[in-house]
Amino acid sequence: MTPESALHELRARMGAVNLRLLESLLEYYQVARMIGQEKDRLHLPHFDARREAEMLGEILEANAASPARLPDDMLARIFKEIFKNSTEFMGVQQRKTLRVHRNSGAGDHVITLPHGRIGGGEAAIIAGPCSVEGRDQLYKTAKPLRDAGVRFLRGGAFKPRSSPYSFQGLEEEGLILLREVADELGMDVVTEVLSVKDVELVARYADVLQVGTRNMANFSLLKVLGSLHKPILLKRGMCATMEEAILAAEYIASGGNNDIMLCERGIRTFETWTRNTLDLAAVALFKQETTLPVVVDVSHALGRKDLVARMAFAALAAGADAVMFECHCHPAAALSDADQQLDMEQAVALVRHIRDCDACIPSSMK
Amino acid sequence: MTPESALHELRARMGAVNLRLLESLLEYYQVARMIGQEKDRLHLPHFDARREAEMLGEILEANAASPARLPDDMLARIFKEIFKNSTEFMGVQQRKTLRVHRNSGAGDHVITLPHGRIGGGEAAIIAGPCSVEGRDQLYKTAKPLRDAGVRFLRGGAFKPRSSPYSFQGLEEEGLILLREVADELGMDVVTEVLSVKDVELVARYADVLQVGTRNMANFSLLKVLGSLHKPILLKRGMCATMEEAILAAEYIASGGNNDIMLCERGIRTFETWTRNTLDLAAVALFKQETTLPVVVDVSHALGRKDLVARMAFAALAAGADAVMFECHCHPAAALSDADQQLDMEQAVALVRHIRDCDACIPSSMK
Amino acid sequence: MTPESALHELRARMGAVNLRLLESLLEYYQVARMIGQEKDRLHLPHFDARREAEMLGEILEANAASPARLPDDMLARIFKEIFKNSTEFMGVQQRKTLRVHRNSGAGDHVITLPHGRIGGGEAAIIAGPCSVEGRDQLYKTAKPLRDAGVRFLRGGAFKPRSSPYSFQGLEEEGLILLREVADELGMDVVTEVLSVKDVELVARYADVLQVGTRNMANFSLLKVLGSLHKPILLKRGMCATMEEAILAAEYIASGGNNDIMLCERGIRTFETWTRNTLDLAAVALFKQETTLPVVVDVSHALGRKDLVARMAFAALAAGADAVMFECHCHPAAALSDADQQLDMEQAVALVRHIRDCDACIPSSMK
Amino acid sequence: MTPESALHELRARMGAVNLRLLESLLEYYQVARMIGQEKDRLHLPHFDARREAEMLGEILEANAASPARLPDDMLARIFKEIFKNSTEFMGVQQRKTLRVHRNSGAGDHVITLPHGRIGGGEAAIIAGPCSVEGRDQLYKTAKPLRDAGVRFLRGGAFKPRSSPYSFQGLEEEGLILLREVADELGMDVVTEVLSVKDVELVARYADVLQVGTRNMANFSLLKVLGSLHKPILLKRGMCATMEEAILAAEYIASGGNNDIMLCERGIRTFETWTRNTLDLAAVALFKQETTLPVVVDVSHALGRKDLVARMAFAALAAGADAVMFECHCHPAAALSDADQQLDMEQAVALVRHIRDCDACIPSSMK
Repeated sequence: MTPESALHELRARMGAVNLRLLESLLEYYQVARMIGQEKDRLHLPHFDARREAEMLGEILEANAASPARLPDDMLARIFKEIFKNSTEFMGVQQRKTLRVHRNSGAGDHVITLPHGRIGGGEAAIIAGPCSVEGRDQLYKTAKPLRDAGVRFLRGGAFKPRSSPYSFQGLEEEGLILLREVADELGMDVVTEVLSVKDVELVARYADVLQVGTRNMANFSLLKVLGSLHKPILLKRGMCATMEEAILAAEYIASGGNNDIMLCERGIRTFETWTRNTLDLAAVALFKQETTLPVVVDVSHALGRKDLVARMAFAALAAGADAVMFECHCHPAAALSDADQQLDMEQAVALVRHIRDCDACIPSSMK
Repeated sequence: MTPESALHELRARMGAVNLRLLESLLEYYQVARMIGQEKDRLHLPHFDARREAEMLGEILEANAASPARLPDDMLARIFKEIFKNSTEFMGVQQRKTLRVHRNSGAGDHVITLPHGRIGGGEAAIIAGPCSVEGRDQLYKTAKPLRDAGVRFLRGGAFKPRSSPYSFQGLEEEGLILLREVADELGMDVVTEVLSVKDVELVARYADVLQVGTRNMANFSLLKVLGSLHKPILLKRGMCATMEEAILAAEYIASGGNNDIMLCERGIRTFETWTRNTLDLAAVALFKQETTLPVVVDVSHALGRKDLVARMAFAALAAGADAVMFECHCHPAAALSDADQQLDMEQAVALVRHIRDCDACIPSSMK
Repeated sequence: MTPESALHELRARMGAVNLRLLESLLEYYQVARMIGQEKDRLHLPHFDARREAEMLGEILEANAASPARLPDDMLARIFKEIFKNSTEFMGVQQRKTLRVHRNSGAGDHVITLPHGRIGGGEAAIIAGPCSVEGRDQLYKTAKPLRDAGVRFLRGGAFKPRSSPYSFQGLEEEGLILLREVADELGMDVVTEVLSVKDVELVARYADVLQVGTRNMANFSLLKVLGSLHKPILLKRGMCATMEEAILAAEYIASGGNNDIMLCERGIRTFETWTRNTLDLAAVALFKQETTLPVVVDVSHALGRKDLVARMAFAALAAGADAVMFECHCHPAAALSDADQQLDMEQAVALVRHIRDCDACIPSSMK
Repeated sequence: MTPESALHELRARMGAVNLRLLESLLEYYQVARMIGQEKDRLHLPHFDARREAEMLGEILEANAASPARLPDDMLARIFKEIFKNSTEFMGVQQRKTLRVHRNSGAGDHVITLPHGRIGGGEAAIIAGPCSVEGRDQLYKTAKPLRDAGVRFLRGGAFKPRSSPYSFQGLEEEGLILLREVADELGMDVVTEVLSVKDVELVARYADVLQVGTRNMANFSLLKVLGSLHKPILLKRGMCATMEEAILAAEYIASGGNNDIMLCERGIRTFETWTRNTLDLAAVALFKQETTLPVVVDVSHALGRKDLVARMAFAALAAGADAVMFECHCHPAAALSDADQQLDMEQAVALVRHIRDCDACIPSSMK
């Protein structure tokens, strides 16, 4: 037989094997589907590491007994791929079992705060200084924002600083100032909590507790926030995958607190013209995969002022429910992030701009 | 004297030094400005490595002679910073001397092709299969696009493949098919050129020559394209900084060919839910820094179909002049990039969607 | 005057300005040096955000008053560069004021544990399963390691898992097993602590508390560990810069706990043949900048077994004091990281190999 | 039936499906193996995009006909995974069919040059200035190197510069100087070729042609170099995966030129203390996967002088056959890369250091 015809025959045979593989896979997924349903009835998670290990064990035994035996680790790799693809599929269900997931039916989750809503329609704006430095600085920053219609005041009282010797924020003093100024102006307070031990303190003053990019995978903090009755703004880790960010949100939701906003704030790459690389595909995917409102922090993502207007529009077009930015009544003298904080004139112009952009987006694209 | 008062005194002294530094810097920039003007008169580039080396040499000599001598390499580092900051400033002028740069006055550069324009208004759409596989496949893909109003047909005849043994494209046969189908339907051909030796051949059939992400820093190819009288679509390298991409465009422009489009197609990061990370801040910065039309290749940036509609809108909001995507009359059987190619129904829907999005963007944001 | 001679004259003038800049800079650093000394006397940190803001304020005022006025933000950018370069220089001193920094004089810090030392000579080996799954699994994994001479047993009792529904570890049950098995075999326990609330519990059973890559920037956890009297193994964040890792160690040291090991475990990049990219230059820089012992976790860095032997040698050559790896008595059935865990035969061979490599490194390169 | 028992039953059923999948897979690989052999007889590449598309087509048809039909794209994804895993396995064979691959039998490829060998034993050293700036600079740099025993002189005559207006190298003048100085001192010339049109010119003067990091995926250049009878030093792209680098080498080898060195020179990441991140796992994998000598360019990888000695040792420990670095008789005045070029005293010390490190590596680890 010529190699050509031999090849031809072998290909026919492989085609037959493929069809048998297809058959088995079709059944596999039917069974997987049914198992998923039973697990739902039993309120069990769909993914089960122990069970996968067992199945693999059985397969490796059978392989060991076969004359055509394949290397165990290779076979393990292949079946993990098959399992992964299966859970990829069960995953559609499984992710649907995530509390944060957008179930076929489920609509957008809207977070209602004393002075406004985030999600489900009009773009929200969260603005304020990087750090609370004093009452005067805070008021002079918040007042023009409120006058321009901004309802959500951000400001750092606990600052996560790389160096233990850098300015760490005014802590409770800062929280008190945020509360006072916000109440005086009729705004809601969004501020970061760095630690489990501060949760109660921060929750006493804040309307929204922010989890910073460095704490996205601080699972014990997330768990505590899950038992809280305050909305959480969860920032994506600067090197976290989208999946990790969604699962971090699930840590909070699994504790019973569904008032979560996912915040894209840029990821670390080699590019230097922007401080981080704003990943707007993550905004689209967060919206597609979850029911959570999505916030884009343009200030930290870009680290420069001249792009915020343009990228705020792009963020809304990508599906963002809210835009967050930093501003300061006297940027050049700011104690932190001076380069990226807008002055109040720029800030007020940006607020108007965001309104205009939001207005021009057809509801079909919201 | 107490340390406190000593510190106080030293700070006063440092304040005085700062003012002297300011004075010198103010003069430095006045001189720099004047040098820039003289250089413009002499048609010299502003940045001059040799001259900087000379200046540094003089400074190091003076340092060597000083009792307060500082380590040479440290001083070199500092002065390179000062020079950089100075050219940062001259750079505003210098970049303005780049042919591609948006000079205060200069408006958007518009590229006029037989069947349409790219830049300066209505969003252009460039679509077609990843690879030209045959006349039937090409026609069945191009026809519905043309019927939907798409004027620019993309398709790969020379494919840059990681493996020398992968399908390398139909080469000239593919070019001929592109030309025939495009002429029959009344479209313009956008196709990639991989090598200096193919430039003439590709230019014979194509209306726009594409430089792929792998060739962005292939400076000899860029130089040859600079002497061509055909528009170039220059893709950003998948790990190129924005600055490198703009300078790559300048390589072409410096040869006399100003018909250049910059194309953002995603950069490599750790994220896996999208094949690359679409960097829309680059679109905003390309528009801000240059007069060139900016294209966004949503297919290669995302590597998945379900995000293209949403991200095409975000791209336009970020300022893109054109959207490029891949489609195929029978995606599952495509010889390359099957996962990311839309079928024709999806493709036609996307074309309509891009039109609608484009229409809703206020001219002030174009 | 011809442009050429004008240019010549201007360059001479710029040369003169450069010399004035040099003069001012030389003085600037003398003053900076003296300020550093006063601050040391006053036990103040060298970097002072408020003070820099003040200085900048004065400079901007002077600039405002000048006829040759430059844009404020540009000038701010330039002076921040000059400050940065100055602290770059003071930084040499400043970093020397970090407790973890290698002061000219200071020798390597050695961590002494009940059953062995880490740092200052012979390469240490930390090995064990990814997760503690049960007494049998733990014993069968630890025994051959101990027989091969390994003194440090690692194992996860609290597992940081991306999904709240994944196996989270046996928690206290796991800690008890680690302690029992380690005591029976005469080993020291290295295990991760995920949360401030668990510190006391973990410290009760562990000899070394590990801070995982996800918690490197969990500053409140670091602060608590700073007040502990147990050695800490601090893993570099998977997207943390070297500087951030060193400052994270300083958070611990600033609390009074100097028994810290820095652990390089790979960073996230686009490369896929290894799970992370092992950054051995970080090992060299951690050794150069700090006195801390440096550990390299080859298992998590590579995510594959076939490279561990080779890269363990490279890690030692780069200056690592210890190598950490994962192994399992039955890898294929492991509940986590099955792909990267060595079986016991491979593990014992690796231990011997590390010994041999260590032996061949001249003391001059330790 | 209770959900528990239903679940139990379903799991049993899934176990059975798994065994059928195993059976089919075992056969699949037998057939794959046989196909591979036939293809070898026919000198066909193992991977065949068209054939995979056909097989997929058949499978999708069968799926369409099935009552349990699964979404086409999902099934396509799954089978592509199965194919990938299969070629993962055939890949072992397939990669073995790569000319550059380390076939079970094949030993290290050694490159023999007029004045020395690279690969297969003693560590080679390639050193010289970044750019050839003139005879005096080149001689003063090369002489001490040669006196220290360095046999391979590197120097840039054609410089790939980001800006078209930067110093582009002395071109042929530089090549002539390299040849003259090398001949006078008895050294071999390693220099970069940027373009197909320069290959002949560079080959006339150089002993080794270097492909720079920007040209690694310039496939048409690689193909031309494949027909050359001179050794090629191929640098990994700064954002190329290891697999892409190996396939780039195969482009050269497939043309008949097997004298290829792979060079790791660092990849782009977020880290800033080193200019690039030196990926030494790539060195280990290049050695494991191919027979090619592996070079590590410590200068470009690190961009700083103080780490080169340490990392050169780590590179050798990782398996590198040669170390390349930049030095200059007067670094501070260098026209390019001044920061990273060693002065000659440092360079000579490094040469000695590399010798000592090389000597201490047991042959078992070479």
